[in-house]
Amino acid sequence: MEHSFIAWVKQRAARLPKVKLGIGDDCALIGLDSLDSAQSDLAITTDSLCDGTHFILTECGAQAAGRKLIAVNLSDLASMAATPLAVFLSLCLPKQNAGDVAAAVFEGVYELADKYKVAIAGGDTNVWNGPLVIHMTAIGKIASGRSWLRSGASAGDAIVVTGKLGGSILGKHLLFEPRLELASQLHPLGLVSAATDISDGLGIDLLNMTVASKCGAEVWLDRIPISQDAMICSQSSGRTPLDHAISDGEDFELLLAVPRERMSRLPSEIAGVTLTQIGTFVTRTGLWSRDKSGVKQLAPRGYVHG
Amino acid sequence: MEHSFIAWVKQRAARLPKVKLGIGDDCALIGLDSLDSAQSDLAITTDSLCDGTHFILTECGAQAAGRKLIAVNLSDLASMAATPLAVFLSLCLPKQNAGDVAAAVFEGVYELADKYKVAIAGGDTNVWNGPLVIHMTAIGKIASGRSWLRSGASAGDAIVVTGKLGGSILGKHLLFEPRLELASQLHPLGLVSAATDISDGLGIDLLNMTVASKCGAEVWLDRIPISQDAMICSQSSGRTPLDHAISDGEDFELLLAVPRERMSRLPSEIAGVTLTQIGTFVTRTGLWSRDKSGVKQLAPRGYVHG
Repeated sequence: MEHSFIAWVKQRAARLPKVKLGIGDDCALIGLDSLDSAQSDLAITTDSLCDGTHFILTECGAQAAGRKLIAVNLSDLASMAATPLAVFLSLCLPKQNAGDVAAAVFEGVYELADKYKVAIAGGDTNVWNGPLVIHMTAIGKIASGRSWLRSGASAGDAIVVTGKLGGSILGKHLLFEPRLELASQLHPLGLVSAATDISDGLGIDLLNMTVASKCGAEVWLDRIPISQDAMICSQSSGRTPLDHAISDGEDFELLLAVPRERMSRLPSEIAGVTLTQIGTFVTRTGLWSRDKSGVKQLAPRGYVHG
Repeated sequence: MEHSFIAWVKQRAARLPKVKLGIGDDCALIGLDSLDSAQSDLAITTDSLCDGTHFILTECGAQAAGRKLIAVNLSDLASMAATPLAVFLSLCLPKQNAGDVAAAVFEGVYELADKYKVAIAGGDTNVWNGPLVIHMTAIGKIASGRSWLRSGASAGDAIVVTGKLGGSILGKHLLFEPRLELASQLHPLGLVSAATDISDGLGIDLLNMTVASKCGAEVWLDRIPISQDAMICSQSSGRTPLDHAISDGEDFELLLAVPRERMSRLPSEIAGVTLTQIGTFVTRTGLWSRDKSGVKQLAPRGYVHG
């Protein structure tokens, strides 16, 4: 299958942006001379999605899985404020309908590659005795020293989230929009001191950010933007909508730190997405929640695959 | 598992070369200012290995699988004459002993990362209901316009292979040495017009090279270097040692094109590896074999996964 699939992919990807040498040799080549390279860093991220864990092939289909794959990778680039350049797609295909599944995954990848003008520059395909595993590495660029890191938050910085949280299992985990547009408009304003994307759940990802930044975080529970889907999930889960918003994974919204003195310059909405302050980073390490009853420790229950 | 594994990996990888920002954020960062970037290209390759297809976990163990994974990727870089900079490791782990398997894969990767001074700069881990799938993306650099491509061969160029071929299933497919050292010593001599690595089998990879180069190839059957393992395989396979040398996959030797007038400057051995001319590229497209009985078409029977 591989040869005809590669030929089809090359033709299908011909309208996307290109790298110096794309699909078909032992490696792809990216020319650095085109990247203002003395002033740029490359941002690189890699993610695998497995049938039965990150998607259910028989429920969502291979195209939705492919779209999720590139969206997850682009979300990582967005969380560093990097601009995507190229993606590399690797497929481990079940024997049954391998060709159709491969083509459908590619179409899902193509959708966002086309939207965000990213080259599909290489990859590999394998057919094996197992369920579908799809893998991507994405490469972006960012002005040197200007990347958003997890480690840049300081006590006093505002905790800001994009969009609404919770209940992504009802569909958003497949259909979410990576926050590239928001990041590309927000980054030039120079307001953000740290960022990550919410993949494991607000609680866990915020905790990770505090650990990287060597501080703590106090979350104002009544300010967390709760999605409609979190409320729907709550009706059958026995958990509150707020718990879904804090603990559900795969929202793929951005979690940002913004120094207090810059908050007045932060728009309430960018690229059609609401920005909401949900608390502040604090000196005392750990994760804390504040509501009418006072401050107490917040134990995150996030969604960690495995 | 992921957090403690990442912490362990970060510590274990601390003695390897580093990129600007390594394991632990949403993306890794590679600073381009350090790469003579106005004169460099990045070479990028990606490969997945699946239990039951590319290795048998219960037979070879996870460490050997990890070593093979990085070796396969480094072989792709060697075949472009690129110098490796960084690798990204992604694991889909079976639930049973996930932590032990992950650590063993990493140790196998580490062995060659250490030997060839490559950063382990990122990755991801997943635990799932399936067999072990391991994935790597490797990034190297090469002087701009100086990369060996598959497409550079011309009629009249010598066909040259490194090492001996065939029977890799007896062990070499796991234990082979990527030809980085050979490539790094051969590249500065400026003798090579095209290259690829022999992953699908000499016949198929040579055919791929002729298609990319828009020419044909005539192989001198009595000059193909046949490995001891091809002879051992032949004793039970009912196929000749020569057939094994032509058709077996996963030798991971290099297949080179060298213009005739430069052949006198080609060493017979580089970095301890023999170089052997096995034929010439020709005008007539297709793959041809020459022996005492004359010239006839050579139908490659290579090893293609799937």
